[in-house]
Amino acid sequence: MKILILNGPNLNLLGKREPEIYGSRGFMDYYEELKALYPDVEFDYYQSNVEGKLIDKIHEVGFSWDGIVLNAGAYTHTSIALQDAIHGVTTPVVEVHISNVHQRESFRHQSMISCVCRGVICGFGLDSYRLAVEALRK
Amino acid sequence: MKILILNGPNLNLLGKREPEIYGSRGFMDYYEELKALYPDVEFDYYQSNVEGKLIDKIHEVGFSWDGIVLNAGAYTHTSIALQDAIHGVTTPVVEVHISNVHQRESFRHQSMISCVCRGVICGFGLDSYRLAVEALRK
Amino acid sequence: MKILILNGPNLNLLGKREPEIYGSRGFMDYYEELKALYPDVEFDYYQSNVEGKLIDKIHEVGFSWDGIVLNAGAYTHTSIALQDAIHGVTTPVVEVHISNVHQRESFRHQSMISCVCRGVICGFGLDSYRLAVEALRK
Amino acid sequence: MKILILNGPNLNLLGKREPEIYGSRGFMDYYEELKALYPDVEFDYYQSNVEGKLIDKIHEVGFSWDGIVLNAGAYTHTSIALQDAIHGVTTPVVEVHISNVHQRESFRHQSMISCVCRGVICGFGLDSYRLAVEALRK
Amino acid sequence: MKILILNGPNLNLLGKREPEIYGSRGFMDYYEELKALYPDVEFDYYQSNVEGKLIDKIHEVGFSWDGIVLNAGAYTHTSIALQDAIHGVTTPVVEVHISNVHQRESFRHQSMISCVCRGVICGFGLDSYRLAVEALRK
Amino acid sequence: MKILILNGPNLNLLGKREPEIYGSRGFMDYYEELKALYPDVEFDYYQSNVEGKLIDKIHEVGFSWDGIVLNAGAYTHTSIALQDAIHGVTTPVVEVHISNVHQRESFRHQSMISCVCRGVICGFGLDSYRLAVEALRK
Amino acid sequence: MKILILNGPNLNLLGKREPEIYGSRGFMDYYEELKALYPDVEFDYYQSNVEGKLIDKIHEVGFSWDGIVLNAGAYTHTSIALQDAIHGVTTPVVEVHISNVHQRESFRHQSMISCVCRGVICGFGLDSYRLAVEALRK
Amino acid sequence: MKILILNGPNLNLLGKREPEIYGSRGFMDYYEELKALYPDVEFDYYQSNVEGKLIDKIHEVGFSWDGIVLNAGAYTHTSIALQDAIHGVTTPVVEVHISNVHQRESFRHQSMISCVCRGVICGFGLDSYRLAVEALRK
Amino acid sequence: MKILILNGPNLNLLGKREPEIYGSRGFMDYYEELKALYPDVEFDYYQSNVEGKLIDKIHEVGFSWDGIVLNAGAYTHTSIALQDAIHGVTTPVVEVHISNVHQRESFRHQSMISCVCRGVICGFGLDSYRLAVEALRK
Amino acid sequence: MKILILNGPNLNLLGKREPEIYGSRGFMDYYEELKALYPDVEFDYYQSNVEGKLIDKIHEVGFSWDGIVLNAGAYTHTSIALQDAIHGVTTPVVEVHISNVHQRESFRHQSMISCVCRGVICGFGLDSYRLAVEALRK
Amino acid sequence: MKILILNGPNLNLLGKREPEIYGSRGFMDYYEELKALYPDVEFDYYQSNVEGKLIDKIHEVGFSWDGIVLNAGAYTHTSIALQDAIHGVTTPVVEVHISNVHQRESFRHQSMISCVCRGVICGFGLDSYRLAVEALRK
Amino acid sequence: MKILILNGPNLNLLGKREPEIYGSRGFMDYYEELKALYPDVEFDYYQSNVEGKLIDKIHEVGFSWDGIVLNAGAYTHTSIALQDAIHGVTTPVVEVHISNVHQRESFRHQSMISCVCRGVICGFGLDSYRLAVEALRK
Repeated sequence: MKILILNGPNLNLLGKREPEIYGSRGFMDYYEELKALYPDVEFDYYQSNVEGKLIDKIHEVGFSWDGIVLNAGAYTHTSIALQDAIHGVTTPVVEVHISNVHQRESFRHQSMISCVCRGVICGFGLDSYRLAVEALRK
Repeated sequence: MKILILNGPNLNLLGKREPEIYGSRGFMDYYEELKALYPDVEFDYYQSNVEGKLIDKIHEVGFSWDGIVLNAGAYTHTSIALQDAIHGVTTPVVEVHISNVHQRESFRHQSMISCVCRGVICGFGLDSYRLAVEALRK
Repeated sequence: MKILILNGPNLNLLGKREPEIYGSRGFMDYYEELKALYPDVEFDYYQSNVEGKLIDKIHEVGFSWDGIVLNAGAYTHTSIALQDAIHGVTTPVVEVHISNVHQRESFRHQSMISCVCRGVICGFGLDSYRLAVEALRK
Repeated sequence: MKILILNGPNLNLLGKREPEIYGSRGFMDYYEELKALYPDVEFDYYQSNVEGKLIDKIHEVGFSWDGIVLNAGAYTHTSIALQDAIHGVTTPVVEVHISNVHQRESFRHQSMISCVCRGVICGFGLDSYRLAVEALRK
Repeated sequence: MKILILNGPNLNLLGKREPEIYGSRGFMDYYEELKALYPDVEFDYYQSNVEGKLIDKIHEVGFSWDGIVLNAGAYTHTSIALQDAIHGVTTPVVEVHISNVHQRESFRHQSMISCVCRGVICGFGLDSYRLAVEALRK
Repeated sequence: MKILILNGPNLNLLGKREPEIYGSRGFMDYYEELKALYPDVEFDYYQSNVEGKLIDKIHEVGFSWDGIVLNAGAYTHTSIALQDAIHGVTTPVVEVHISNVHQRESFRHQSMISCVCRGVICGFGLDSYRLAVEALRK
Repeated sequence: MKILILNGPNLNLLGKREPEIYGSRGFMDYYEELKALYPDVEFDYYQSNVEGKLIDKIHEVGFSWDGIVLNAGAYTHTSIALQDAIHGVTTPVVEVHISNVHQRESFRHQSMISCVCRGVICGFGLDSYRLAVEALRK
Repeated sequence: MKILILNGPNLNLLGKREPEIYGSRGFMDYYEELKALYPDVEFDYYQSNVEGKLIDKIHEVGFSWDGIVLNAGAYTHTSIALQDAIHGVTTPVVEVHISNVHQRESFRHQSMISCVCRGVICGFGLDSYRLAVEALRK
Repeated sequence: MKILILNGPNLNLLGKREPEIYGSRGFMDYYEELKALYPDVEFDYYQSNVEGKLIDKIHEVGFSWDGIVLNAGAYTHTSIALQDAIHGVTTPVVEVHISNVHQRESFRHQSMISCVCRGVICGFGLDSYRLAVEALRK
Repeated sequence: MKILILNGPNLNLLGKREPEIYGSRGFMDYYEELKALYPDVEFDYYQSNVEGKLIDKIHEVGFSWDGIVLNAGAYTHTSIALQDAIHGVTTPVVEVHISNVHQRESFRHQSMISCVCRGVICGFGLDSYRLAVEALRK
Repeated sequence: MKILILNGPNLNLLGKREPEIYGSRGFMDYYEELKALYPDVEFDYYQSNVEGKLIDKIHEVGFSWDGIVLNAGAYTHTSIALQDAIHGVTTPVVEVHISNVHQRESFRHQSMISCVCRGVICGFGLDSYRLAVEALRK
Repeated sequence: MKILILNGPNLNLLGKREPEIYGSRGFMDYYEELKALYPDVEFDYYQSNVEGKLIDKIHEVGFSWDGIVLNAGAYTHTSIALQDAIHGVTTPVVEVHISNVHQRESFRHQSMISCVCRGVICGFGLDSYRLAVEALRK
């Protein structure tokens, strides 16, 4: 089973940026732990601040891999292009958020991509990624 | 560990109602399976079509149990009273939905309770309940 | 043929409440007259001010009776849960209103349940119920 | 008793246009059946695609006839002029729709004329016209 | 003089729920003090989390008692049915709120019931109830 | 000097329709009085309930006459086509209303044609027409 | 007959401010001409940039004079207090505008005071004031 | 204890203006009665139609007096400057309204100052002022 | 191949009306050129300012001709009746505009008919008609 | 004559993505056909999923080439930056869409770039590109 | 060079009001420092809580001085009259704010006067005034 | 002191694009002048049309440099991702605009980034950059 963890803008700052919301742990550290939990899954990880490169990546794996766990960061709320990309591929995508976006500014309550994702998981800190993998394995 | 599974309006129809969206399996059947998965967790189950009775139940367990998995059904989108109830207790509540509500009518895209829940999980069919239990156990 | 007449909140006040809008006749008096008009129809009547109890009733008869004439009162304008209940059963439901709701406050112009009912009849006083029975018999 | 059946734009296409919504029967065929049901009523029928001609007709009969059954078609949703015409005459007008307009596009959910009509009947196919005649006779 | 104190959803949590907003005193304790202040007034007290039961209570006393002090809690902001119930009875109703709702979330700034109440008092803590009694005695 | 008085839908009912708003005097009676007041002006009068015929008339006189006094009735609030017609001709047009439209329903507060008229006069009863002629003579 | 000409904010700049919209003639110059046209009318003139002083003036003359011609300038679009003042007095008020406000920014299309004025005249340059006097004399 | 009664625009017309809403009694008459009720309170009274002068007054007493009872009239609905003034001082302010503003036009349902006042009392006629004094004394 | 060129309101003024937007050439002149370009196509031309007559024409040719090139003018933005007419026939319709409507007032940015047309072409001056014929021939 | 064909996000998936909407033919295949149709035109082709790279390309050719045919995909609906880029160059740009965007989700009905393009062509499948070249050649 | 520093409502409270937002320094103290920085500039200072008096002042200096630095306080967000005043004079006006208004309530994000000012400077504390003088000197 | 000048989309066209709004001077020319004004400041300059690369640059310098002067161009109005990037770093950012965006289209009046910047400066042409440097030095 092959799963891509795909992180969008500013998530490379994890651990440095707003630790009261996102925690002080860097993502790569967590990623190692996640891989150890599922030795039978082949993971890959990609992060970019460029909307178009996230789309490129979805195109690249979206017809052959078994799942994408996508934290699209701020593009979640504005990107019709990401919606089209997810809709255009066949690999199931699970939308995740570290924080509970519904407790933040109102423009973060709307997602442009939920409607094309398999499901949504938000608010459980980094554990949201594990739950998404759980969901994909099911 | 004590967890309440709390279902709102029309979820007693599960298995009979719109099987193309919710599947044809009744909830009690799934509930037995869920309990078997976590023998160390003490579960209770409650369903009501009455908004106020859901609130009563939240009040009843909300200061002593370890978690509530809440599928508030259609009240999700209108009930400020449920929001107040969740906000008023100390037990963490996880909001779940069987279907991906973002793929349905636009009035189902807004949740009045997400902002007071610990997190949200939607779109994974009945497996959403298991993922919520996973999240609470973490 | 079995038809349920189902009345929502405040309709128990009929005859006492705002007689300039609803007339001064109590509903039970009219109900007797209605039954006499259609001796071949088996009628039942239920009224509740509790949203959830209306849903319970719809679930109870909604897979076996031949029709429901529903005056949901003020819940007409806000209840997604009633919409789900009607959508979830197989018995056809006709929405009725005694007054012409379009001549009253603007929040009464929107109905959350019209979209799942067979049809809508409003503005003909108590005669709206008879017209609904006529429509169901057709 | 004299009743005018007044049909607005595109209703001359009935039987040809979107039969999955409106049925495949032409209106004149139904009209003969309707007249036969009420031998004591004097009917007249008029159809036009021109908004102003519908107004002309309402003016013409609106101070002397006993009722108008009006299916204003698409002008239902936009015509303040029709509202004024109905409001300006003394003959009661019943608004009818063949389809349940609340199950279609959202711009068909609003009616500019309901507020000046005696009542509204929608969603019962061609039978909506008969129910309107029933209501006027009462 | 007979006055009903009527409390809506979650007000049974008073003293336990969000003490920084509502204070830590339970309502029954305050209620005894209130009764002592007005020995010439006959009080009754009722609380329910069920919207329909609040309506039932208003119907029950609304044609014979001298006043209702109503804290409708979260139903204040959504319930047309409560509006209809208050409008349908003859006893004057005073709307009260413990907190200043205008300093909280924007959806709490709108009241569906103010337009049918005699007046509104909000923001004075539990003392809002006494001021309402003062107003009714006048 | 040549001035056209152009009346839109339902104004042929003047004197019969809603006399509490528009008065009980027919327009032709007033028109004679108006002509007598300005013997040096050549008047013509046209009324139609058909939007397109009002446009035809504006085209007909709009490049050679000296002024148009237009009461577009309900089309005032919805007709972009009338706006285009007025904008497309060179004769100045003055918009008039008999009643003060700002004291009526909110959909009558917006005019689609004010922005292309020379000016607007409303609320002075039939005298609005005389004031428009005064304005055009200036 | 006594008529007050009442000008609001920035109208003291007339002749200096935006001459392409308002013309280059100062108001006092026009005022002399206006008085000469109606020797039988007793006029007074008042201008202020202060909203409250316009209200004071309306109170002062509003129970004894025969008419007020009010150009409220920018306060037209925002002042509920002016609306209350006009509504509170018995003297009829005619709202005037020099320019056609409907050809300018959209926030100038709404008037808070039209609904309490006798009528509205706009777009005829300074001649709007004369037409208002004509209307009041009628 | 020192309390300022502060009245905004058009309240000087009380007794003359719209007596069906505000009653026919002048405010000064009521004010004498109010002072007599609380001989231990030092009252002062100020009224102005000018928004800025109300602000001046709030600044003048707002750091040393014990309470302000403010009926801001129409400025209630539009004045951010009054909001800032109340927010900027330390004296508690109680917002009062004579009529139930929620039964009037919708633009009167919104208050710009409620969010910075201690509490709100509306709809009890002139008795609203007494209730406000009661609240401040508590 | 038979194609109808159908022009709506005010397009008979082409060449006279707003030449800076629409050019100074009359439509009939262009129509001759267009016919010459496609000698194998049988063309017909119809223009009306009356919405209902455009509908009549669409009904007349809409079940037998091969294409309609429709410039509905201002009715584009408001006419649900035209939408229904196009939807009700089987001949493909191409919507054209001479000017780029997106560079004009915002109410011209919305089209009620685009959703039922085969495609849309706008902004190429009279050449828009030729491109529509090109598209239909394909 | 030099024309750039510029495709935005996800158009590289053409032929693979949602063939029921976009057809199953890859764009490069069509592009060869298009070039063959116009041997006198020098074409270039560029596609990117990155918004900023589309802007770079417009800058690169926008002062020297003769035309750009732009299918901006999902950026059509959100990109003010593309609007600025098109507005900033001198080469005329024609906006094209393969599908009739007006028959899809409502957020696809708005275009941020139409107002700065020469014209718009949508709904004719891949033939939209040929029509755009036709328009530019004119 | 002559520059007016013009402060609107509540800015006389500076140093006393909300020091966590505006700092604890009075404006006159800062004003002395500012004058010392630019010995070649002739400054004047004016503050009023009355909207109309700010307008008077702008009229007074607006045709002869070299610049106005305007902090309109809360009137920034509501005053069309101030917009007209600034637009009507020839002296350039720079809008300043002490706090970053975009970090506060949403009704403070809109400015009615930015569109007629030369430029806007906000968020730099009292230093915003110096930057405005710098801009005017340039 | 180290300050980054960061320019967003289309600003590389400065001097070529819309010179009536932005002037005809290229940015690099101005940049040399700016550097000469502040010999004690170490400047760097970066421009990109790619949103994600602007974010990369902010991350790169945002924990060690002393200030960023950011003209985000059109991304100002849409980019939540830029907002997050600015919020996530510790270097203060000043938002600048060359033109007065409030005098342009309404979608340019909203900024997604003002709320996380230290302050905003707009409308002073290229001098806006110098004022931003002044502000940062303070």
